[in-house]
Amino acid sequence: MTVRATLAVTKGHGTQNDFVLLDDRDGVLDLDPGLVRALADRRAGVGGDGVIRVVRSADLPEGAAALEADPAAEWFMDYRNADGSVAQMCGNGVRVFVRFLEQLGLADLGGGASLAIGTRAGVRHVTRVPEGYAVDMGVWHLPGGEAARAAGHDAFVSVAGLAGERPALSVDMGNPHTVVALASLDELDALDLTRAPLVMPTPPEGTNVELVVPLGEETTPDGVVGHVRMRVHERGVGETRSCGTGACAAALAVATWAGPGAPRTWRVDVPGGTVTVTMLDGDRVELAGPAELVAHGEVDVAALLRGL
Amino acid sequence: MTVRATLAVTKGHGTQNDFVLLDDRDGVLDLDPGLVRALADRRAGVGGDGVIRVVRSADLPEGAAALEADPAAEWFMDYRNADGSVAQMCGNGVRVFVRFLEQLGLADLGGGASLAIGTRAGVRHVTRVPEGYAVDMGVWHLPGGEAARAAGHDAFVSVAGLAGERPALSVDMGNPHTVVALASLDELDALDLTRAPLVMPTPPEGTNVELVVPLGEETTPDGVVGHVRMRVHERGVGETRSCGTGACAAALAVATWAGPGAPRTWRVDVPGGTVTVTMLDGDRVELAGPAELVAHGEVDVAALLRGL
Repeated sequence: MTVRATLAVTKGHGTQNDFVLLDDRDGVLDLDPGLVRALADRRAGVGGDGVIRVVRSADLPEGAAALEADPAAEWFMDYRNADGSVAQMCGNGVRVFVRFLEQLGLADLGGGASLAIGTRAGVRHVTRVPEGYAVDMGVWHLPGGEAARAAGHDAFVSVAGLAGERPALSVDMGNPHTVVALASLDELDALDLTRAPLVMPTPPEGTNVELVVPLGEETTPDGVVGHVRMRVHERGVGETRSCGTGACAAALAVATWAGPGAPRTWRVDVPGGTVTVTMLDGDRVELAGPAELVAHGEVDVAALLRGL
Repeated sequence: MTVRATLAVTKGHGTQNDFVLLDDRDGVLDLDPGLVRALADRRAGVGGDGVIRVVRSADLPEGAAALEADPAAEWFMDYRNADGSVAQMCGNGVRVFVRFLEQLGLADLGGGASLAIGTRAGVRHVTRVPEGYAVDMGVWHLPGGEAARAAGHDAFVSVAGLAGERPALSVDMGNPHTVVALASLDELDALDLTRAPLVMPTPPEGTNVELVVPLGEETTPDGVVGHVRMRVHERGVGETRSCGTGACAAALAVATWAGPGAPRTWRVDVPGGTVTVTMLDGDRVELAGPAELVAHGEVDVAALLRGL
């Protein structure tokens, strides 16, 4: 344990999902829940949706499983929610984590190299792409199976500001999602997501809800790319400017509705920017998008804790 | 105009009213509304209720009036709202501004010295006190005059989560306030301030609304001190963790209700901490409280603007 008078921090975000980043390459930082909450506090602290610590997989109990799965997973993304609790993974956070690793000189993804990153949800493989980074998000599936695929829905959703109950498709990305297609951007803009949408049947552990408007397809030099715009209500959080697994779920639902021959690549506009979702072989999905490191500085820990 | 690749910033707060602080002692920074909005953005930027620039009164058109009122007002608090608009003043911001000046070595309030600060609402005089700084907030009055003082109210307020319409007292602090006394801390906790309280008669330019619970008086070595707890709905903003003029208005209303012999000094608990309000001669009022500088760093301006 090291008690510090000042703590070096970096503030970064991926499509405005934002984080306080800590370089703990030597594994000496005592990142207790109180310090996480203080750093993530948007008024008394630095502010972020979460806190991400760079630490060696070898220096963390949870890192053993990552190293067993892939011995190349030298670095572990120790992600904490803003409330201080330990989190599994964050699709937008991985990109920002890797940008931070590169800026620290701890990784180099040049020349098409793939980097293995340890997380509590397993190892993630990341590559550099023109807009930032691409992350293999693992396997997805439709909990409703072939019946849901054929019907196009397996649930209904009711949202404030939207007339009626709308059919919705459940998508499992490791975490639960429910995707609703809207008729127009006007409907999307009119939604009131200050309250959680009502999902029927009610998922026992809750669900993230994505409201999407398909915007057609475009032919690009890389092939046909689908385009959707979305808003998202995150389970236990509220509306956010971006949700990585939610963007994947939205693209996968729209692709499912489009049926065979649908584009494999989707540009997804979220309130905080644009990400690209690509369906890979083996029911895997890749999420690509930007990662920005906006500020670097020193936190006065005593002043931080005094202000809470 | 200077375009910079990086911009030095400090993040600070007074009772969790938080600010991005800029040292522009040489008056070379082009602080356009877009840059202010980007810096104040809580996810894509540094995050704050506003941006405060340290600049010489002599380097700003608005500074001429300050220097005329008090030639000692060398430094000007150039306060901007998070939306990029120019603001008059901020009671909590003045304390943080002066803490920043002292840290920069541009002012020294040791030995009981009073510092004159230029603001768009006039010159403010600040002194150092044990908990932070004390600011002379100027003259207050009751818009309802002697009739309101005698009746104890000149308005009614209805708030979600609170039964019935409650009598309220209007207080002018240069900006408008309406103060409502509640019966208990349970009533205070139960309020729903996600929507603006309804004030009757409706003030033409809106009003800040303070909900207060008087908590009695305490005898201290410095005399009798009143104690209130409050929540506040700021006009055009919503509920906030602190409002400097609102804390003054709350104490002044409770003192008015208590009548002659009421304490001159009030400890006011706001959600973001505690401030002290002291009634001065000549219907002036002083606000004292903490000021914390939590982090210092460098913003990558290109990364900041890319992420919006």
